[in-house]
Amino acid sequence: MTAPGAAASGEDSLIARYFRPLATDPGAFALGDDAAILKAMGDDIVVTADAIVEGVHFLPDDPPDSIAQKALRVNLSDLAAKGAAPAGFVLTLALRAADDAWLAAFAGGLVVDSSRFSCPLLGGDTVSTPGPVMISITAFGRVGAGRMVRRSGAKAGDRVVGTGSIGDAVLGLDILRGGTVAAAVADDATAREMLVGRYRVPQPRNALAQAIRDHAHAAMDVSDGLAGDLTKLCAASGVSAVIDVPGIPLSAAAAAVLARGALGIGALVSGGDDYEILCAIPEDGFEAFVEAAGIAGVAVSSIGTVIAGRAAPKFLDAQGRDQPLPRLSYSHF
Amino acid sequence: MTAPGAAASGEDSLIARYFRPLATDPGAFALGDDAAILKAMGDDIVVTADAIVEGVHFLPDDPPDSIAQKALRVNLSDLAAKGAAPAGFVLTLALRAADDAWLAAFAGGLVVDSSRFSCPLLGGDTVSTPGPVMISITAFGRVGAGRMVRRSGAKAGDRVVGTGSIGDAVLGLDILRGGTVAAAVADDATAREMLVGRYRVPQPRNALAQAIRDHAHAAMDVSDGLAGDLTKLCAASGVSAVIDVPGIPLSAAAAAVLARGALGIGALVSGGDDYEILCAIPEDGFEAFVEAAGIAGVAVSSIGTVIAGRAAPKFLDAQGRDQPLPRLSYSHF
Repeated sequence: MTAPGAAASGEDSLIARYFRPLATDPGAFALGDDAAILKAMGDDIVVTADAIVEGVHFLPDDPPDSIAQKALRVNLSDLAAKGAAPAGFVLTLALRAADDAWLAAFAGGLVVDSSRFSCPLLGGDTVSTPGPVMISITAFGRVGAGRMVRRSGAKAGDRVVGTGSIGDAVLGLDILRGGTVAAAVADDATAREMLVGRYRVPQPRNALAQAIRDHAHAAMDVSDGLAGDLTKLCAASGVSAVIDVPGIPLSAAAAAVLARGALGIGALVSGGDDYEILCAIPEDGFEAFVEAAGIAGVAVSSIGTVIAGRAAPKFLDAQGRDQPLPRLSYSHF
Repeated sequence: MTAPGAAASGEDSLIARYFRPLATDPGAFALGDDAAILKAMGDDIVVTADAIVEGVHFLPDDPPDSIAQKALRVNLSDLAAKGAAPAGFVLTLALRAADDAWLAAFAGGLVVDSSRFSCPLLGGDTVSTPGPVMISITAFGRVGAGRMVRRSGAKAGDRVVGTGSIGDAVLGLDILRGGTVAAAVADDATAREMLVGRYRVPQPRNALAQAIRDHAHAAMDVSDGLAGDLTKLCAASGVSAVIDVPGIPLSAAAAAVLARGALGIGALVSGGDDYEILCAIPEDGFEAFVEAAGIAGVAVSSIGTVIAGRAAPKFLDAQGRDQPLPRLSYSHF
């Protein structure tokens, strides 16, 4: 991604017009070179990449600013879960055509979030495609040397803690697709809008990064479904867990949908796109973690306990019986 | 991109089978976490991103190992031009389906080049797409603090120097598409194979990175056509240039195609996919640069001179007349 000099092609002027305003870091050279410079300043650089594809991760008629925000935020969510502070991102954009109205709105969404999350654009690539729009972002964070929070540090006795609420995004997607949830919230525009908003624009928990770094034994973001992602965290840590399903935090709108029987809890805990943080907090640090989360303005809920063993985590209902889950998580293949 | 624990989905086992062998850097955590760690070790981290799309940058029936190699090498070429040593890369792969034979060959190509160029896989993302296959790579290099070679340092009096040969890839693409070049090389299988090979698998000049760092005032890789890329370098440096077109290095096969009149020199200097390096070398460093290039085993040619001014570079034929060019470079939009 390079901005034009004298030989501005369509691609170059597109980049200059829409993306140069995002390249506020001196290491981006105003998108005027082949590469950017990222300075570690003694920290470790945390690197993560997530791509979103039209028709798979977002819908063709989703607002372009929300598509841009989702593309960046799914990456910011990984940085938050690793305890890292955002340092910048690289954007690869595959487009069928250079549609000015779409691009202006898309770049507008990125400008807002790049500034809000202190995550400047460092570079990238813009290519044409005959297929669906695809946005691939590699994001960088900084964390003190050796301080990145891994998936693999959970220990028996830790509390399993989740942020925010689980399952809203999968309900929002169902509404956009005209599924059973749409009927259940037909008379509640506020709930409908909230759930769709949670699907379109995740709320990454970057405000919680320092508390995660200070207190969590292990953490990851919940992107493919709570049940499957917890299973991965447990496997990486060589432990198991018991989850109290009624303790899983739900929004009022999601609770109402459940109460009407439009979907079961299983669909919520195995649906994707939550972009909440799942972490293992040692009992003796839990109070301090909750206090730090309160100061950061992020709701956290204790939903279970890490236990010894290698078995898949157990999900128990209010009566302590196994809660059947239709599947663990979303998989592309 | 994360490898599986107990909850292996199709996506996870695909990553474990094909891509974990590439994750040789300890900072990749064997693809078992949400993010990787890149240590700067006091250097600047150079970041570059280039994506390739089926039907745009490669053809659907190109060998999968060559597609993988091209995807990585177009990025390695940027690192070389910036004087940086490869440090690793992140891979985002959008696939219609998980085809084992295709993936095994694709990963095989990456294994070879990742090792050859000392550029381990750090992480990434694998997503499904209903459209063309797309490979987006963000690559990292290390360079001493403040030592990245910019586009913007060329000075009047510098020599304009190019590596290797120009125009082979655009001829190779024409052959694959059954264009006029195909007929011109119909009786020369060796030339045909060489030209197609140059299109499919670029030869990035990473062996020259140190010489670039030690001697070049400015450098960039030639990816969108020599003429347009030189124009960009001049604009970034606030200079102009005069190029001796007969001095532009051509392979024997390209020279033979030109001699048969199948294509003009203009098509070669404005065609893309060369992945050679274009640089500005001060006169008093030229001899040492040529010597260093010889030791690195990379052919270099002096093709012109940087001059003062802001005009577009001039391309002069053997008689010193302006060489007409059909266009400056490839643009996606």
